[in-house]
Amino acid sequence: MNQPHRIILLAHGSSDQRWCDTFEQLAAPTLESVEGSAIAYMELASPTLEDVVGTGKQNGIEQFTVVPLFLAAGRHLRKDVPGMIADLEARFGVVIRLADPIGKNPRLGYAIRDVVTEELETGTENASG
Amino acid sequence: MNQPHRIILLAHGSSDQRWCDTFEQLAAPTLESVEGSAIAYMELASPTLEDVVGTGKQNGIEQFTVVPLFLAAGRHLRKDVPGMIADLEARFGVVIRLADPIGKNPRLGYAIRDVVTEELETGTENASG
Repeated sequence: MNQPHRIILLAHGSSDQRWCDTFEQLAAPTLESVEGSAIAYMELASPTLEDVVGTGKQNGIEQFTVVPLFLAAGRHLRKDVPGMIADLEARFGVVIRLADPIGKNPRLGYAIRDVVTEELETGTENASG
Repeated sequence: MNQPHRIILLAHGSSDQRWCDTFEQLAAPTLESVEGSAIAYMELASPTLEDVVGTGKQNGIEQFTVVPLFLAAGRHLRKDVPGMIADLEARFGVVIRLADPIGKNPRLGYAIRDVVTEELETGTENASG
């Protein structure tokens, strides 16, 4: 089945497999729900952004949206990732849109509130009783 | 009103005010809903964890839970933060529990899925139509 557009969840990456495992768990609901979505790492882990764009292009996908699994934009998202994207667009002849980091979406703040509320109910029973 | 327990949302911190602004927006729903909750930064921004624990202790709070606003645990959460916490516990005579980083809670993965779904509906109309 053709998928004209691919969502790439971009995580920083780490040489610590436990770090990558957490991101794969974070990505799992998206990967299950959004056809053609994939996870990629900026550095220190694979698949890289280049791997995922290259594979997509081989499968006929020419439009990508990169959704950064970052809570806020620092140097990586303001400078490094746009540079990587410009390079990949030129090399593969594709269009790659860089979305805001997930932390810019208000849904994340609400999820954090719910995590903290749950934390108070379960983790601090002895302290808050 | 006495608040026997304080939740501290711990972010890494940055010298870039835009980065801190994003974390303050992320923290806002929690700060509005959870009495006595506060945000603190590991480094490069204020208030620091020491500031928040010290102020809490002055106000009679001796039990704290630190909820890391990190998607996954790297060196900071495995080593640096536990060291900072042990130091603050000794200096202030308080008990500080370090919760899992928010990214370990499945709610975050669901929020990410919803962000991506929204992204597909709004940001990629031209590409996916």
